[in-house]
Amino acid sequence: MIIVLSSTASERNRDDVAANLKERGYGVHVSVGAEKTIIGVIGVGVEEKPGLSDQFEALPFVEKCLAVSAPYKLVGKNFRPGGTTITVGNVVIGGDTMVVMAGPCTVETPEMIIETAHTVKAMGAHILRGGAYKPSTSPYSFHGHGVPGLQMLADARTETGLPIITEVMDVRDVETVCEYADILQIGTRNAQNYNLLREVGMAKKPVMLKRGMSSKIEEWLQAAEYIVSQGNYEVMLCERGVRTFETYTRNTFDINAIPSIRELSHLPIIADPSHGTGKASLVPDVTVAAFAAGAHGAIIEVHPNPAKALKDGAQSLTPEAFETLMARLKKLAPAIGREL
Amino acid sequence: MIIVLSSTASERNRDDVAANLKERGYGVHVSVGAEKTIIGVIGVGVEEKPGLSDQFEALPFVEKCLAVSAPYKLVGKNFRPGGTTITVGNVVIGGDTMVVMAGPCTVETPEMIIETAHTVKAMGAHILRGGAYKPSTSPYSFHGHGVPGLQMLADARTETGLPIITEVMDVRDVETVCEYADILQIGTRNAQNYNLLREVGMAKKPVMLKRGMSSKIEEWLQAAEYIVSQGNYEVMLCERGVRTFETYTRNTFDINAIPSIRELSHLPIIADPSHGTGKASLVPDVTVAAFAAGAHGAIIEVHPNPAKALKDGAQSLTPEAFETLMARLKKLAPAIGREL
Amino acid sequence: MIIVLSSTASERNRDDVAANLKERGYGVHVSVGAEKTIIGVIGVGVEEKPGLSDQFEALPFVEKCLAVSAPYKLVGKNFRPGGTTITVGNVVIGGDTMVVMAGPCTVETPEMIIETAHTVKAMGAHILRGGAYKPSTSPYSFHGHGVPGLQMLADARTETGLPIITEVMDVRDVETVCEYADILQIGTRNAQNYNLLREVGMAKKPVMLKRGMSSKIEEWLQAAEYIVSQGNYEVMLCERGVRTFETYTRNTFDINAIPSIRELSHLPIIADPSHGTGKASLVPDVTVAAFAAGAHGAIIEVHPNPAKALKDGAQSLTPEAFETLMARLKKLAPAIGREL
Amino acid sequence: MIIVLSSTASERNRDDVAANLKERGYGVHVSVGAEKTIIGVIGVGVEEKPGLSDQFEALPFVEKCLAVSAPYKLVGKNFRPGGTTITVGNVVIGGDTMVVMAGPCTVETPEMIIETAHTVKAMGAHILRGGAYKPSTSPYSFHGHGVPGLQMLADARTETGLPIITEVMDVRDVETVCEYADILQIGTRNAQNYNLLREVGMAKKPVMLKRGMSSKIEEWLQAAEYIVSQGNYEVMLCERGVRTFETYTRNTFDINAIPSIRELSHLPIIADPSHGTGKASLVPDVTVAAFAAGAHGAIIEVHPNPAKALKDGAQSLTPEAFETLMARLKKLAPAIGREL
Repeated sequence: MIIVLSSTASERNRDDVAANLKERGYGVHVSVGAEKTIIGVIGVGVEEKPGLSDQFEALPFVEKCLAVSAPYKLVGKNFRPGGTTITVGNVVIGGDTMVVMAGPCTVETPEMIIETAHTVKAMGAHILRGGAYKPSTSPYSFHGHGVPGLQMLADARTETGLPIITEVMDVRDVETVCEYADILQIGTRNAQNYNLLREVGMAKKPVMLKRGMSSKIEEWLQAAEYIVSQGNYEVMLCERGVRTFETYTRNTFDINAIPSIRELSHLPIIADPSHGTGKASLVPDVTVAAFAAGAHGAIIEVHPNPAKALKDGAQSLTPEAFETLMARLKKLAPAIGREL
Repeated sequence: MIIVLSSTASERNRDDVAANLKERGYGVHVSVGAEKTIIGVIGVGVEEKPGLSDQFEALPFVEKCLAVSAPYKLVGKNFRPGGTTITVGNVVIGGDTMVVMAGPCTVETPEMIIETAHTVKAMGAHILRGGAYKPSTSPYSFHGHGVPGLQMLADARTETGLPIITEVMDVRDVETVCEYADILQIGTRNAQNYNLLREVGMAKKPVMLKRGMSSKIEEWLQAAEYIVSQGNYEVMLCERGVRTFETYTRNTFDINAIPSIRELSHLPIIADPSHGTGKASLVPDVTVAAFAAGAHGAIIEVHPNPAKALKDGAQSLTPEAFETLMARLKKLAPAIGREL
Repeated sequence: MIIVLSSTASERNRDDVAANLKERGYGVHVSVGAEKTIIGVIGVGVEEKPGLSDQFEALPFVEKCLAVSAPYKLVGKNFRPGGTTITVGNVVIGGDTMVVMAGPCTVETPEMIIETAHTVKAMGAHILRGGAYKPSTSPYSFHGHGVPGLQMLADARTETGLPIITEVMDVRDVETVCEYADILQIGTRNAQNYNLLREVGMAKKPVMLKRGMSSKIEEWLQAAEYIVSQGNYEVMLCERGVRTFETYTRNTFDINAIPSIRELSHLPIIADPSHGTGKASLVPDVTVAAFAAGAHGAIIEVHPNPAKALKDGAQSLTPEAFETLMARLKKLAPAIGREL
Repeated sequence: MIIVLSSTASERNRDDVAANLKERGYGVHVSVGAEKTIIGVIGVGVEEKPGLSDQFEALPFVEKCLAVSAPYKLVGKNFRPGGTTITVGNVVIGGDTMVVMAGPCTVETPEMIIETAHTVKAMGAHILRGGAYKPSTSPYSFHGHGVPGLQMLADARTETGLPIITEVMDVRDVETVCEYADILQIGTRNAQNYNLLREVGMAKKPVMLKRGMSSKIEEWLQAAEYIVSQGNYEVMLCERGVRTFETYTRNTFDINAIPSIRELSHLPIIADPSHGTGKASLVPDVTVAAFAAGAHGAIIEVHPNPAKALKDGAQSLTPEAFETLMARLKKLAPAIGREL
C-alpha cells in the first residue's frame, strides 16, 4: 500500500504516519517527491486489510491510499498457476472441453424437465440447468417449486445421466440443495451475500458464483475468496452481464471479463449469454464469442416452448435454436484448440 | 401492458395473440398504425406479472412489450396519498422533523459506543446507528461483534434513551436482532436478497431498506413491496448512492431519487451521505442538500477517532465536524419549512 | 407513439389531447384500460420527432410517452435488408471477408509508419490505420502531426498499396483529410458532434463512426443517420467499448452490440478491441470473440515498440503479438463461414 | 507517478526502468516490498504526461502505473486558493450571490424570448439563457435559428438589461457567437471536442463548460484546462447530470460533484437541474439542493408554455413554477450564508 500525503502535510505529520505504521509492524519507505511525499507500506497481507487504508485516509493530511497488490490471495493466479479443474460426473470443467450447461430457467413440471433434459442431452449438452428456487424482482412472480423442483431435477438426472446445477438462495437451504444438486449456483443478487458465500464454502459441492450485476472484477474475486477461504476450492466464476446505461439489451455481457479472469485467477470461467443479453436472438452469437474469448463453459436457457415459459421466456432458446448453436460450437472447437 | 408487433407480423399472428390474451382473461385493444400494430392488454395487475411480457416477447413476431403501469402497488403513492409516518420512541419519521441518525459504522467497544451515543445525542441526533453484523468486501475484514455488539447498542440506548438502528444480514438472525433493535436495516448488498426481505416483512419492527448499489428506483420500490406484502408497512427507504463510472467518490449520491421517491411512494426517504460520497469532507454539504431536496432523515457515520475506526474511517465525521453540520441543519430547517 | 395518461386525467384532458393530435394531422386511437387510459398516435414519422413526446410529457396529466418505432430510418435494417458493402481499394467491408485494419495509434515518423505498414501488410492486414490528428484528455499531450502526418500515411500507402484510415476531428479539416484518406474516422469524443457528422455526410469518402463512450445503440444509430441523411451511405459503425464502473479495463467492450447492430441496421460493424480493453494482453482474445460474434472487421493498434509509443502504448500489440493473432484469425475464419 | 513491477520482474528489469527514467531526467526512488517492487518517479509535471504511464505499462514486467498528483494544474485549487470570480454585467459569479440563469431551451420567436426575458427578470433571474444553435440526437429535430436567434437574444438583452448565455457548437461559429453573447456555453456533447475548447480558450468571453455525460470529474477538469491553458481564465463548470443505469430520470444529477469541484478547483460551479433530472416536477427540489450543497449558480429552463416548446418541454418550468422556486431560494439564501 502507498500513502500519498497532501501537499499541506508537515514533516511532523509524515513522521507520525511512519511511527504509526512501524508500531503496527509494517516496514516503511518514505519518498519525498517534487510535489508530494509518498510513504510505501511494506508487509505481507497489507492489501487485504481494507480498514487500514480507510484509517489513514481519515487523517486530514493524507490525500489517498493506493493499493499495490490484489486484495485476494487464494483465488489469485499465482496461487495455482496451472489452473483449477473441477470434475462433475464425467465432465471436467476448466480444461480443454467446452462445457455446455443447458435447460429451462425454472423447473415447471416433471414432464417438461425430463423432456428438456433428453432434448439438450441429445444435442450435446453436458449438464442440466433448472431453477427450483428463483429470485424475482417482483414479489408476485413465480418463485419456484422448492424441494419438489429439486426432486424433479434429480429424476431428470436419473433418466438422462446429466449432472444438475441449480441455484441456492438461502443459507437455510444449503444442506437440502446439496442433497440433490451436483453444482450449487449463487445468483447475481446474492453475489455479495457473504453469509451465503461462507455456507457454500463449507459445503462439499462445486459452486458456480455469478458476478454481481455491478461488481468490479476485483470484488467478484473477493466474493470467490469468501468461498475458498472456507476450504471449498471447487469454485467456478460465471460472467452474466453487468448493468450499464444500455437499454436495448437486458445487461451488457462483459466479454473482457473472460480473458481478464483467465489472467488474474486459476478458477474456471463460465459464460451466461442468456442473462448477458436478455434476448434469444443474440444468445447464439454471444455464446460463440465467449468460447472464442476463452470461456471454459456456457450456461444457456433452453425451453421447449419459450412463449409458455413461466420465467425468462424472452431469453430462452427453442430446442431448434439450441441445436443450431451446438452445430456452430462443434465447428468452432477445433479452430480454437478446444473440444466439445 | 402494450404489445408491439414487429412489422413482419401477419394478421393471423395478431389474432393469435389476441385470442391468447382473451383466454387468460384480459381485455384486448388492437390498434393498427402506419408502421406497426400494437395490442393493448387490459386487466388489473397485468404489470405485476413480469413473466407475462417475457412470454409474449418470446414470440418471433412480437417486437417488445411496454409497461403502462408501475410494477408495484402497496408502496405506490396512490395507495396512501397522505404518506406514511413511523414512530420510534419519541421520534416521528416521515413528518416535518428532519430526523438525524448518527453513530459509528461498527460497534467496537462498550465504551466507544456509549461515548459516541452521548456525544451525538448532545449534538441533537435522534437515533443511534452502529453495526453489530457488518458486510465486508473482503473475507479478512472485521465482520462485527454479533450478539455482544447488539448488547452494547442496547446498553447505549439504556444510557441515553436514543432508539437504535442496526443491520441484519442473515435470515437466521432476524429474530435475535429484533430483540435488541428499534429499526432493522437492510444493507445495499442484501437489497435484492428476497428471502431476507420477506423475513423482515414478517417482523414487528420498522425496517430501513437501502437501495441496491445498481437498483433502479422501480426495482428498489419492488424490493420494498416484498416487505410490505408480508404485512409490515413500517418501511423507510434509504438512498446511499449508486455505482457509476466516477472514481473520485465511492458512490454517486442520487439526489434525484429523493423527490422521485416522494412523488412515487408514500414511504419516508432517508439519505446516507456517508456511503453516498465515501469522503468525510463531502458529507456535510451532501447532507444539507439531501434535506433541502426533501429527505425525511439522514443517517451519518460519526466516530470519536476516525483514524482508528475499524471500518469506514475515511467517510466518518469527527464529533467536531458533526457538531458543525448539526448547526447548519438547525439554520436550514425553518428556511425549508421543517423542524429539527 | 403511445401517450399514457396519468390516473388523475379527466375525460376532458383526454379529449384535448386527441383534438391536439388530430389538428397536427395524426390519427388517434384511445384505449381506456382498467387503471390507465392510453392514446395511440398514428402517422408516418412520429417517432423521429423527439420534440413531440416532450411536448405531451409537459402536460401535467400525461404520465409518459412510449416510442413504438425506432427513431431512425435510413440506417435501419428494413431500409436495405441485404446489408451495405463498402469497397475501399481491393477490400470489401460488409461481406464475408474478415477485414483487419492495423497500425499505430499515432503517426510518429515517416520511417515508423512505413515500417509498420510493411509489417502489418506482410502479416495479412488489409488497411493501415494511424492518427495525424489525435484527441487527448490532457492539453499537454501530443496531438498529432496534422498535415505532415497525413502525408506520411499517404507515402506509406504508396509504398505498400494499403488503403488508409485516419481520424478527422474538426469541421475545418474535413476537406484536407479527404485529400489523403481512404476512410474517415470519427472518434468517440466526436460521436455526437453533429456538425462534424453533417460535414462528413457531405464528403465523398467512406466514414467509420465510433460509438460514443456512453451512447446507447439507438443514439449511435441516430448519429449515423446524421451522416446518411446528407447523402453519404458509405458508413461503417465501430464498437470501441463503453464506459462502465469496471476499472480493470479501460472500457467495457460491448460484444452484444455486434449482433444487435446486425439485426437493427444494414451498416457494417467493426470492432476496436484496443480501446475496448485498453490492455494489450486482452486484445487478441477480444478480437477473436468479436469476429466470432459477427463483426465485419477489426481495427487494431500495432506499434513496432509499444514501450516507446507516443500514445496508447499499453494497448498496442507488438508485431509478434499481432502475427500470432492473425494466425488465430486464419484458423477461425473457415470455422465461422468467413474468409481472411 | 509510481510504477508497480509485476512479481515476475527481475532485478535487471528494475534497473532498466530506473535507467530509462533517469535518462528522461526524472528522479527515481526504488522500494522493494514483501510482494512487489515499486518505483517512485520524481519530477515536476510527470502526471500531465499521459503517454508516459502508457509507455511503461507497455512493458511486460510492469503491472501498472499509479498517479500521485492530479493531471491538471491551472484549474487546480492550489493555483488560486481564493477562488475565481467572473463578472458579467452587474452579476458576480463565484461569490456569495446565488446566480440564477433562466430562459427557454431554444429561442423560438422574437416575441417569446422577450416575453420570457421580462418574466424571469421580474421573478429575480440574473441572466437570460436560450439556444440559437441546438444539438439534437435526431437529425430531423429543430436545430435552432442560428444568427437570427442570436439577434433575438441580443434584442431581449437590450429590452431587459439581462446578460445572455448561449451555446456554441462549431469552431466556425465562435467569432460570431462572441459578437452577441455575454457567456459562451459548451454543451455536454462537445465537452471533449478539444478543438472547440481551444477556440473558446482564445476568445475574450467567459465560458460555461458543461460536464460530459460520462466524464469523470478529473476529465472534466482536464477539459477546463484546455480552455484555461489558452489564456482564458473566465471559466465556470456546469454539472448537468451524468449517464447511469437509472431510467426514471433523464440523467443522474451528481450532487457530490458540487462540493468535489469546490475542493479540487478554484472555478465557479453551476448546476443544471433541468438536464440533470429531465423532469419539470423534480427541478425545483434539485435546484434548492444544489445551492445548499454549494453551487454558485443554477441554469434553469423556463418556457411560457412548455406543452408547445420546440424542445425539452418535459423539463421546462412554467413561469408559475419558476416563481415558486425563486421564492424558495429567497428563503434559503440567508440560512446558508448566501444572497439572492
